[in-house]
Amino acid sequence: MYISERTKKIPTSPIRKLAPMANAAEKAGRKIYHLNIGQPDIATPDSFFDAVKKFHPAVLEYGKSQGQEGLIKAIQKYYHDWGMDYNLDDIYVTNGGSEAIAFAVMTTCDPGDNILMFEPFYANYKSFVGAYNVEISGVPTSAHDGYHLPSEAEIEKHINSRTRAILISNPGNPTGVIYTEQEMALISRIVRKHDLALIADEVYREFVYDGEYKSFGTMPELAEHLIMIDSVSKRYSACGARIGCVMTKNKELSAQLLKCCQARLSVSQLDQAGATGLYTTPASYWEEVRNEYTRRRDTLKEALSAMPGVISSEPKGAFYVMVKLPVDNIEKFAQWLLTDFAIDNETVMITPGNGFYVSSPDRGRDECRIAYVLNCEDLKKAMHILAEGLKQYPGRTL
Amino acid sequence: MYISERTKKIPTSPIRKLAPMANAAEKAGRKIYHLNIGQPDIATPDSFFDAVKKFHPAVLEYGKSQGQEGLIKAIQKYYHDWGMDYNLDDIYVTNGGSEAIAFAVMTTCDPGDNILMFEPFYANYKSFVGAYNVEISGVPTSAHDGYHLPSEAEIEKHINSRTRAILISNPGNPTGVIYTEQEMALISRIVRKHDLALIADEVYREFVYDGEYKSFGTMPELAEHLIMIDSVSKRYSACGARIGCVMTKNKELSAQLLKCCQARLSVSQLDQAGATGLYTTPASYWEEVRNEYTRRRDTLKEALSAMPGVISSEPKGAFYVMVKLPVDNIEKFAQWLLTDFAIDNETVMITPGNGFYVSSPDRGRDECRIAYVLNCEDLKKAMHILAEGLKQYPGRTL
Repeated sequence: MYISERTKKIPTSPIRKLAPMANAAEKAGRKIYHLNIGQPDIATPDSFFDAVKKFHPAVLEYGKSQGQEGLIKAIQKYYHDWGMDYNLDDIYVTNGGSEAIAFAVMTTCDPGDNILMFEPFYANYKSFVGAYNVEISGVPTSAHDGYHLPSEAEIEKHINSRTRAILISNPGNPTGVIYTEQEMALISRIVRKHDLALIADEVYREFVYDGEYKSFGTMPELAEHLIMIDSVSKRYSACGARIGCVMTKNKELSAQLLKCCQARLSVSQLDQAGATGLYTTPASYWEEVRNEYTRRRDTLKEALSAMPGVISSEPKGAFYVMVKLPVDNIEKFAQWLLTDFAIDNETVMITPGNGFYVSSPDRGRDECRIAYVLNCEDLKKAMHILAEGLKQYPGRTL
Repeated sequence: MYISERTKKIPTSPIRKLAPMANAAEKAGRKIYHLNIGQPDIATPDSFFDAVKKFHPAVLEYGKSQGQEGLIKAIQKYYHDWGMDYNLDDIYVTNGGSEAIAFAVMTTCDPGDNILMFEPFYANYKSFVGAYNVEISGVPTSAHDGYHLPSEAEIEKHINSRTRAILISNPGNPTGVIYTEQEMALISRIVRKHDLALIADEVYREFVYDGEYKSFGTMPELAEHLIMIDSVSKRYSACGARIGCVMTKNKELSAQLLKCCQARLSVSQLDQAGATGLYTTPASYWEEVRNEYTRRRDTLKEALSAMPGVISSEPKGAFYVMVKLPVDNIEKFAQWLLTDFAIDNETVMITPGNGFYVSSPDRGRDECRIAYVLNCEDLKKAMHILAEGLKQYPGRTL
């Protein structure tokens, strides 16, 4: 029986290779600080479960393919409050941000086409494009520049006749970078010059710690090019509710997105009810969450800057930081931390950086992503373990 | 900005063209009996909402990509009770049956490959294959043979070097046909001879009214070829919960399915909790549901057989029947019923049959699908309206 080349080519994430070792360590009673996944520990607002409780129809029917009207209106209002005005029929509710990205890829690219992404990028983007036989044109950025964008000329070198879109996350996963106004203007010029789609993954929009963020949705010149990706997962600590959305003002694209929605019939009614509740969460929720993450970010920044030979991006948003470590091989180091190292029977799990690159097998080999989704006390302990690990690791390069 | 040929090619369902007319008629106060969609009117079992109520974690985290263990065990037990033994790691929970089919297509076919289907088939299959640039090789069956399968030689004419799978629904949507043991043995021979995958869509398994059904999962010789598609949507009248599953004993395929699951992270936690509850529904639920649908089926069969010039499949399972009508053009007739005809300000909406075919634009032009998801009283009224409509329609051919 034939197995498709398409799925065979989709890489298994480096973290999956580490999972059995982490499981074994935990089974043996070792505590692991999980810096490897972007699963917030913040409580999900009550508004989610309150709304779910109220939703009890006699027959749990299919929802509308586009999404339930109440949720679409809530999303519209949320964007209006951010200074972006979308029509109700510009908004499509999806099974998480994942499906939103899949729809964006599917509607803008045919097999053999490519999408430009800035490395390091969210590793799962590889799966979303691979499913549709679309390639990635990776533009390298580096730790030494804080993972900011290269010049316009340098970026354009990576665009060819089959390039259909730029996919960018802002605030960035895995870098925590927030692009400057100049960088956004640069992206906008390139997108319009080459008539590309701009797929803006802004699921971390609320996680900004230095107050300088703007959305691509506020740039009117991009209206016909912009495909906005959003999700309630991170914003409201509701990852287990699979509710995202894809939005566009481009009518031709919009008609195709509707067909994508109709094909899979509808999205979970319960999750949509809950998500509609989430959008009523008071602004004070953000303040608390942002204050908490700011403290964590500062804790992390301070700890990393004290480690010799460590270079990191400036974590200004999201809850990740990309870090260059003085080690020979990040996969080996990450494994060693799980199997050969501990302080008081505690260790840390990090995400090897090579999974966030495509342009060369060597890239990311001494980098890792750290998710600061632990409270400050745990984060301090985890950073202490990492610092000691770097001193003792046999393959250290410092 | 480029819009993909891939999505442009995905057909808009014929029913979508009728939707504005139906909306207009309903707005004007006309009652429409909806025979067009497979949305059961049966109450969703309490076990769903009871289980949802109990699920209230502090943080609504991502579920496991493969699915929650409790649900997987419930599915395993359900299959065991049907005489099919699957290991826990053979079962993948999906966003409805839709995603299960998408994963089956994605893992077995590369762009340009094809899947053999028996016409008429569920129109949405076109979207699932179109998304992955896979073609359909349509094998015609006809109303005159009750939509049963043609000979082995005839079927093999539609298999070429790029044929990767047979996708079949049993009980059949839209025909209501249940395949005989001889037909299933024929499918099994072809699948093994040509080393194809058999994608068995058995979401209507419990809707069998004459007691002669067997699952492809009970044929051990198919084990390495079979990809089982299932869903709670129809079975428990829970279409708005997006929970299905894809199952295989083929280890190579299984590894690829896991990657598909990991790419989209996880499935709704609430829906999984509810679905786990659904699998505890007592057997008496089936009996009631089956009795109710048997009455509806009989009501429909009797009414159709009294209509001159009408030929229908023998509705033995699911809750659909495919019907050949004495009309010039089914799309025109369906439209006319909504815009130009009524009895006591009531009319009916049917699904034009041409959307269920690919082999020729002429096929299905005088056929429609009727979903018997209304109670018997409404169904009788609807059949009366249809019969009178056939007498008065200007484009009648009898």
